[in-house]
Amino acid sequence: MSRILLVGASGTIGRAVHAQLSPRHEVLTVGRSSGMHQADFSRPGALDALFAAVGPVDAIVSTAGNLHFGPLADMTAEQFNQGLQDKLLGQVRLVLEGQRHLRDGGSITLTSGILSTEPIRNGANATAVNAAIEGFVAAAAIELPRGLRINAVSPTVLTESLESYGPFFPGFESVPAARVALAYQRSVEGAQTGRVYRVQ
Amino acid sequence: MSRILLVGASGTIGRAVHAQLSPRHEVLTVGRSSGMHQADFSRPGALDALFAAVGPVDAIVSTAGNLHFGPLADMTAEQFNQGLQDKLLGQVRLVLEGQRHLRDGGSITLTSGILSTEPIRNGANATAVNAAIEGFVAAAAIELPRGLRINAVSPTVLTESLESYGPFFPGFESVPAARVALAYQRSVEGAQTGRVYRVQ
Ligand SMILES: NC(=O)c1ccc[n+]([C@@H]2O[C@H](COP(=O)([O-])OP(=O)(O)OC[C@H]3O[C@@H](n4cnc5c(N)ncnc54)[C@H](OP(=O)(O)O)[C@@H]3O)[C@@H](O)[C@H]2O)c1
Ligand SMILES: NC(=O)c1ccc[n+]([C@@H]2O[C@H](COP(=O)([O-])OP(=O)(O)OC[C@H]3O[C@@H](n4cnc5c(N)ncnc54)[C@H](OP(=O)(O)O)[C@@H]3O)[C@@H](O)[C@H]2O)c1
Repeated sequence: MSRILLVGASGTIGRAVHAQLSPRHEVLTVGRSSGMHQADFSRPGALDALFAAVGPVDAIVSTAGNLHFGPLADMTAEQFNQGLQDKLLGQVRLVLEGQRHLRDGGSITLTSGILSTEPIRNGANATAVNAAIEGFVAAAAIELPRGLRINAVSPTVLTESLESYGPFFPGFESVPAARVALAYQRSVEGAQTGRVYRVQ
Repeated sequence: MSRILLVGASGTIGRAVHAQLSPRHEVLTVGRSSGMHQADFSRPGALDALFAAVGPVDAIVSTAGNLHFGPLADMTAEQFNQGLQDKLLGQVRLVLEGQRHLRDGGSITLTSGILSTEPIRNGANATAVNAAIEGFVAAAAIELPRGLRINAVSPTVLTESLESYGPFFPGFESVPAARVALAYQRSVEGAQTGRVYRVQ
């Protein structure tokens, strides 16, 4: 039984990851306004109180992060920066601060997404942010000390999200959240590092 | 003879690109404090005056952008954000604003770097930023109108930069700036879009 911090536990992916991990682990749930602990990882300093309250953990899992979607023709740098500050820098912040609160041999699992390698209309911010997350994971893996590991999960569009996002993903096969959740289990309970688990 | 805006023209790569392009094109040079026009693309609004002064162009080339280098163990989110705001968002801003000032069939060429796919110690910010730039280029390419094209050049360490950066790149082969400059010419004068030209 290990202690796992799950940021985004109330979301479509987060709920499935919670269901997959909670039978064998103590899962501490986090959201901006949901969960056992509240923190918005896009804000400077937002994680200090969280880690002070939570104490040492064996794994940090993020299934959270917001992007900007919209046509390139109208996109402003400010809109593009929203995705940088939230899904990208928020998850990076979780790693930079979290590395000091992980027990030896612990792991971090972040979330990117299929757009990292499969661009769609309106998705320039998503592709850039998801590609950056996958790059960051590969780079952080070679520097983390004490046997700490880091991976990303890159899902395609979820079957549960088709009603809201389906029209953005013409002809993409969807995957059920329960299948995506297995990849988070592989990352947490497996032994690999610097990996992107693509569930696509 | 086409009009090319070259941001970073006074740098190690920029000088070689200038030498390669200027015999056949009108090259308008830009830097924060160097060049014919001054602009810092990491600052909101910094490009309005530049494009107003320069008018329509056939190509925009960026050989500019600063990153944060340092050990992951000490890295702060603020340091990581410096690379996001400068090399990443600065070049993205050049595209988002520049698309309206390019003539039909014009092109944009950005600079990433070998770290996008080959992580080194101290390079987590560089890998994330360079990967994001390559992702952004692939995504922007499918949305640009009027036959506009966009590519990136991803050089390994330059022979001219070995004295300063060599120790960060153990065992990496270097390339002379003149070879790297050819990739910018291919991007500007060729017909491809959404490409990463790796000079590695
Ligand atoms: N759904 C898909 O089809 C799909 C496919 C590929 C990738 N993804 C990626 O997977 C991630 C989760 O997607 P989802 O559909 O599960 O999202 P979701 O249903 O909207 O859930 C997001 C979760 O993250 C929390 N959260 C959001 N922003 C946060 C922040 N700044 N700080 C802390 N917690 C935050 C939310 O809780 P609060 O509201 O309480 O903050 C919620 O628990 C996103 O990054 C998305 O891009 C999703
Ligand atoms: N050198 C290498 O071995 C190598 C290898 C791979 C990738 N790269 C990448 O290639 C790019 C250029 O490298 P370099 O070695 O040629 O750099 P450099 O010699 O330091 O030159 C940088 C150029 O960009 C301008 N510049 C810098 N920041 C700017 C900003 N915020 N806004 C506008 N202009 C700016 C500088 O002019 P001012 O000082 O007047 O602003 C200068 O003209 C960098 O992004 C670097 O990561 C370099």
